[in-house]
Amino acid sequence: MATITSNFTNVKSTVHFPCISNQHRSHLHLKKPTTVRMSMTQQTRNSHPYWASMQADIEAHIKQFFTIKEPLEVFEPIHHFIFSAPKTTVPTLCLAACELVGGERHQAISAASALLLMEAATYTHEHLPLTDKPKPKPKPESEMKHVYGPSMELLSFEAIVPFGFELLARSDYGENSEKILRVMIEISRAVGSEGVIDAQYRKTMGSRSDGEEMRHVEEMRRVVEKYEGGLHSCGAVCGGVLGGGSEEEIERLRKFGLYVGMIQGMVKRGFNESKEVDEARDLAIQELEFFKDKEVDAIKTFLNI
Amino acid sequence: MATITSNFTNVKSTVHFPCISNQHRSHLHLKKPTTVRMSMTQQTRNSHPYWASMQADIEAHIKQFFTIKEPLEVFEPIHHFIFSAPKTTVPTLCLAACELVGGERHQAISAASALLLMEAATYTHEHLPLTDKPKPKPKPESEMKHVYGPSMELLSFEAIVPFGFELLARSDYGENSEKILRVMIEISRAVGSEGVIDAQYRKTMGSRSDGEEMRHVEEMRRVVEKYEGGLHSCGAVCGGVLGGGSEEEIERLRKFGLYVGMIQGMVKRGFNESKEVDEARDLAIQELEFFKDKEVDAIKTFLNI
Repeated sequence: MATITSNFTNVKSTVHFPCISNQHRSHLHLKKPTTVRMSMTQQTRNSHPYWASMQADIEAHIKQFFTIKEPLEVFEPIHHFIFSAPKTTVPTLCLAACELVGGERHQAISAASALLLMEAATYTHEHLPLTDKPKPKPKPESEMKHVYGPSMELLSFEAIVPFGFELLARSDYGENSEKILRVMIEISRAVGSEGVIDAQYRKTMGSRSDGEEMRHVEEMRRVVEKYEGGLHSCGAVCGGVLGGGSEEEIERLRKFGLYVGMIQGMVKRGFNESKEVDEARDLAIQELEFFKDKEVDAIKTFLNI
Repeated sequence: MATITSNFTNVKSTVHFPCISNQHRSHLHLKKPTTVRMSMTQQTRNSHPYWASMQADIEAHIKQFFTIKEPLEVFEPIHHFIFSAPKTTVPTLCLAACELVGGERHQAISAASALLLMEAATYTHEHLPLTDKPKPKPKPESEMKHVYGPSMELLSFEAIVPFGFELLARSDYGENSEKILRVMIEISRAVGSEGVIDAQYRKTMGSRSDGEEMRHVEEMRRVVEKYEGGLHSCGAVCGGVLGGGSEEEIERLRKFGLYVGMIQGMVKRGFNESKEVDEARDLAIQELEFFKDKEVDAIKTFLNI
């Protein structure tokens, strides 16, 4: 168990994060899930009261703007897909970055919520049964349950993305509209054709080319860079922008987020003991050195994979 | 042939719009296409040099920000779906509304482009082959050709929506960020769960309940109100906001756009000679009376269905 001191939520408190040894992580080795899914370490971290409180704040914010109403056949599936999609650390990193640069959590809560929504939409999309996809093998834990049928899943996906942008656009109170637009550009790029879409395409091609999951390290690196790397990088930048960080701080956070995401992506794909992971961790720590006058212990826990 | 005088693009010019008689429109009667597709009258209107120039401006604007690059397998399909989707009058109405309230076309070009992109994404989505959809009957003219396969179609759909928001967010030059955020909220709502998604759900349920296209007038009205009505209403509002219209002007444009869209939607579904169409046309003309000091002849042509 590691003990760190954090000043999140403006209250100096001591929180305990479990250290997961390599032995305990061995079950991840070479297990290659195909979806945005938390590793065991991420699940453990998010189940910690402090991280859970961040996640709860984000979900409460979304619920404030999204209520289930008539027709229930439309709103219930959307609600289901938003809150049943596996959680990642992208939205919480956004809040942590905001607080690192001196902002308050509420300033980045809409961006964090939009990021959660985009990831929920991506998850829904990745599991959509299309006529050119092979019928998935039964994987009870990882597969999304098709409760509502493919057409409603697609409609939900189509509804979640604009809802994310709307939620973000509505968070302007006449003071920070330029920052919000900047964050929108960051999110659009991260989830768009040069980000997640590119990674999804490479993943599809990779899994088709050899009849199963791709194994080539270089190609895996590219996917991870655009996918988990790009999303975490975006999350950190959004938090930095909305928290009022300087340009230098924002660029440091961009790189830090990239390395955090790459580590997570590589570990998820079974490369948890590789030199690439060690290198990325060293680079991430170097970026944090820029913030030596700030409280970095909390954000550093994103490297505890 | 009707002759009207227009001061669009700040050049006083006389343009000619073809009048389509009811006889010529008879082929539309009770023909009920299920997609966002131009009626013959819309095609005719958009093929007019003036309307074609508006459409060309919008497409040129999109091309300026979207270039085909590597990996071609990702960018080519996106390009294809953006520019091959049937055109509607929603983006052009956005520009016309902007000019009506005294704005210049370039002020609304990003919103018009975003609207075109959202409609292209919706069209791609509606034609996505899902495992719970019946295999479509061969309709060579109306069906989208599945050149790239369902997975690439879905990826393209997923890429086009954030690209639309990005394009809009990037159109801020530090002067109109609040207006852009307002327009984003309008677009998100129009294409989201309370707009197009609701209409698509109703359409799906309607077509399933009786084994073919729904026929009930009341239900058709609801679909048309959310779909074509909501989108045209949104287009007109976006143009009004970005063109610097007053709140009263914007609300008049909201209603005018709604009626324009409802007329188009009803005509498309074969109700072209109904009292509902006549009523909607009268109400639309009433809204335009508010602009009696402005040049309304051009925007009035949106009623020439």
